[in-house]
Order: sequence, then C-alpha cells, then structure tokens
Amino acid sequence: MTAVVWCNGTLVAQLLSLDPTDRGLLLGDGLFETLAVFNHMPIWQRDHLARLAAGAALLGIDCDLSLIESAVASVLGEAAHPHGILRITLTRGPGVRGLAADGKSPSLLVTLAPWSAGTLFTPVKLTTSPIRRNETSPASRLKTLSYADNILAAREAAAAGGDDALFLNGKGEIAATTIANLFILRNGRLATPPESAGILPGIARKTLMALTDAEERPIAPADLLQADAVFLTNSLRLVRPVHALDGTALNRDDAAVARVFEKLCQSIAEESGIDPRKADAL
Amino acid sequence: MTAVVWCNGTLVAQLLSLDPTDRGLLLGDGLFETLAVFNHMPIWQRDHLARLAAGAALLGIDCDLSLIESAVASVLGEAAHPHGILRITLTRGPGVRGLAADGKSPSLLVTLAPWSAGTLFTPVKLTTSPIRRNETSPASRLKTLSYADNILAAREAAAAGGDDALFLNGKGEIAATTIANLFILRNGRLATPPESAGILPGIARKTLMALTDAEERPIAPADLLQADAVFLTNSLRLVRPVHALDGTALNRDDAAVARVFEKLCQSIAEESGIDPRKADAL
Repeated sequence: MTAVVWCNGTLVAQLLSLDPTDRGLLLGDGLFETLAVFNHMPIWQRDHLARLAAGAALLGIDCDLSLIESAVASVLGEAAHPHGILRITLTRGPGVRGLAADGKSPSLLVTLAPWSAGTLFTPVKLTTSPIRRNETSPASRLKTLSYADNILAAREAAAAGGDDALFLNGKGEIAATTIANLFILRNGRLATPPESAGILPGIARKTLMALTDAEERPIAPADLLQADAVFLTNSLRLVRPVHALDGTALNRDDAAVARVFEKLCQSIAEESGIDPRKADAL
Repeated sequence: MTAVVWCNGTLVAQLLSLDPTDRGLLLGDGLFETLAVFNHMPIWQRDHLARLAAGAALLGIDCDLSLIESAVASVLGEAAHPHGILRITLTRGPGVRGLAADGKSPSLLVTLAPWSAGTLFTPVKLTTSPIRRNETSPASRLKTLSYADNILAAREAAAAGGDDALFLNGKGEIAATTIANLFILRNGRLATPPESAGILPGIARKTLMALTDAEERPIAPADLLQADAVFLTNSLRLVRPVHALDGTALNRDDAAVARVFEKLCQSIAEESGIDPRKADAL
C-alpha cells in the first residue's frame, strides 16, 4: 500500500521521527480529520479545518491552519493518483509530565492513503454496543485521538458479525456509530441526533443538513424500529443504508436513501469535478 | 531532562522511529504502565505487567512479557541514576484502516525519566469534573492511551486552581481522579470504590488493600464530606491526603493517612532496599 506521509515539516519515506514524549502517542492527546480526495481536491476541507481548529482551541493546542494547508498541498503534490484518503493528525506535541500541560509545540502529521470505493452505499448491519457514548465529556463531540471506546465497540460488533456498533448515550438516546452519524427517515422527513447527544458533528452530516430539511432531535431506540429508513453518513463512505439492528431487519427504503446519497455525490462533484461513484474509473 | 528511551528493539538517542500507521499514535490504541524505580528496581513490576497483559488480552493486542522484561532491563542498564520513572507503552502497532483490526505486530516503547520526590504526600485540593467516568466501557478499567477525558478534566481543574479533578461515574458515585485512586477513612476503616464504579484498578491501591482491611464499596459524594480523612493513591505519588473538595475543606487526619503512606513506603523498601522518602538523598 503506497502512501504519502508528511510529518513535522518533512516528507517521510518510511518511518517517521517522533519525540518520545509526544502526547499524541503517549496519551491520545490530539485530534484528527479524515477527508476524501477526488481529482486532487480535499473535499469539504474548509469545514474539516474549522472543526479541527475549534477542537484544538478547546483542548488548548496551537493550530496553525496555514501550516496545515501547506502540508496538505505538499502531500497532494506527491500523490500518484488523483483520489485518496487524506488524514490530518494534530497532537499536543512533546510534553513534560502532567496531564494539564499546554500544547505550544504541536506535532502535525498529514498522510494520503489510496482511495477505495468499495464501501460507498454498501448496506450495514448494526449491533448495539453495551458501551455508552459519554455525552458528559466534550471529547464525545471532538474527533480526538482517544478512540479506545470506539475500538472496543467496533471489535465487539465485528465479533458478533455486525458491520459497525451503535452507541446509545448515558440517557439511552441514539448517539452515533463508531465511525458515522445516523439519520432516520420517517414520513418523508429526515432527523438526526443533536450534538448534545454526545456525537461528533460530522462534516458529511453537516453538508447533508444544509442540503435538506433534516431536523436535529433526540432519537430513541424505538424510533429506529419505526423509521421508514435508517442510514449512516461519514466523509469517506458518504451514505450507507442500515438494514438490520441487533439481528432484526429494519424498514428500508433504499431508493429514498439513494436520493440522499445523490445529494452528497453532487456536492462532491461540484467541488472536485468528479462524481465519487465514478472515481475508480479514472 | 535526560531520559533513556527504548523503542521496538533499539535504544533511541533522540527521536524515535515509528510507522506512520501506528495505531497508538493515530487512535490512542494501546496501553501503558508507569512504575517507580528505586535502586534500579521497578517497583511492583509483576502487578504492573499482569495488569498490562490482561488489558492487552481484552483489546486483542499481543503482549510478549519476556520481551517487555528484557526491554525494561535494557533501559535500567542505561540509567545514570538509581531512581526514576519507568513507562511501558504497548500499542496495537502499524495497522490497516478499520477500527476492529487485530494487533499482531504491536509496538513497544519503554522509557525512563528522572525521579522527582516533590509530590510525595503533598496535600491535594480536588475539584469535581463535569465529565463523568464512563463505567459502561471496559476502557474505564484499563490504562489505555486514550486519555482525552482525563486531560480535559485535569486542564479544567488546573484552570480552577485545583490540583486534580475528581470523576463521578454515570450513576453519580465516586470513581477516581485523573491519575489516582481514592480512599476514605471512617471510624478507623478504609474504603475505596470497586472496579465496577469505572476505575482503573491501581497497583498502589491493590498493594494497600493487601496490607490493610480496606473494603471495596460504592462511595457517594456525601461520604467524602462525612469521612474522617480522604486520600489518593498511585504508583508514583504513592499517598496524598485530600484537604479540600470544590473549595470546601474536608475533615483531615494526616497522621492516620501518614500511617497508610508508611505501609506503602515499607513495601517499597522491602522490594528495593530504600525508603522512597529518602530516595533523593542518594
């Protein structure tokens, strides 16, 4: 698997060089973003960088957006293929001991991995995780490097034959999956949990909300069973219909979900000049 | 600050070499242990390694204890000073994309930093974090690299003038602080929250429980106000009395807490031949 890697000012051939006290490695102390790249264009980049900067401000990590944009340009300039998966990782950098430390010398890692269209619109079987999403923590609304809960839930779902795990929050409301936001369709109306439910406010979610009249409201597990359709969004897989929850088939309306998918594909085509569904054909 | 660093088989002079897809760096996907070292002896090492191995098994990360022991010996062999702070970091290693990935090629980082006796038995002012400890997640009982909640809580406590943050769990029970277990003393009897409260089962806590008749039971916030004394334990700071919570002075019995501290110091002296309170004098 070829990849382009930029770390702290340098394009990296194989292994990257890291300070042994880097807080990203030692404490999951940092943030990341993953962006689809089509025709050399990082999709919805402005929204991704705005989310990164807001999270960094909350965590007290310096975030130099012009440096990040320049690193992204360096990486994309080295790309052997017009499409890919871009990841931006910002850590608090090397630190003294002590959890409350500031982040005045952050580390920045930007990587580009190959694009794979394999999971666009593929249906999903969800299993409900016994782990609750911790909506009492600001981290539940940030894309931090601290992914232990998501990893544990994803491994448990995979072991049970599911494709992803569904998190409820501490109040028993629907939050999100380990890698995606959730929407329901009922009587022609879209709804998705609000940020206060303990969700990462996804960029595909945000884009879709701007293109539709989707409402943010608390969603109960029973709402999933009563919905006409349930689907997931994220920046790489875009839209995937949910066909089953904990072994029970859900109502499905793949045609309606496909129309939602179409909206995101059009948004990407406007930005990059190519429809993601045709990206592998290049 | 001088330090000894061993990473994936090599003693490292300055920067360590890391695969850019290492899941420890990208996802906080790994575990760590911190051990006090006195007279070149890593204290309570067997318990620390047992906890690490159990956590790795739960996360599905290979854990080669003989490799870890050999890396620890290499690092201690390079130490310029007989006392120090040893940290063992085990990550899932380089991985393909996908949260549920296995960890058959873990990364191992072992570092030794200088010992500082400065915080032994220094009193603590706690502030209660609005972030709840998520006892629904197995990660709440593991020392994973995913420390975002602890970091956010510690920063908030520091900003409010506190020394550490106290976590309640989702049920409103006392859990722990960001870096320590909590004990209360009432009518001559010690009590500490059970693992099911969502606590990391600390090694200093375990050692102390073996040396006393401390009981594990749910502890309510009101219990702290009624206790004769409250104190914290961890493997580096050992015992610290808590003198205030959210700006309210707590009952204190520093003499009783000092007797507890004495027990842990004796345990360490038996293992290393030196009392930690005299460690700086060497």
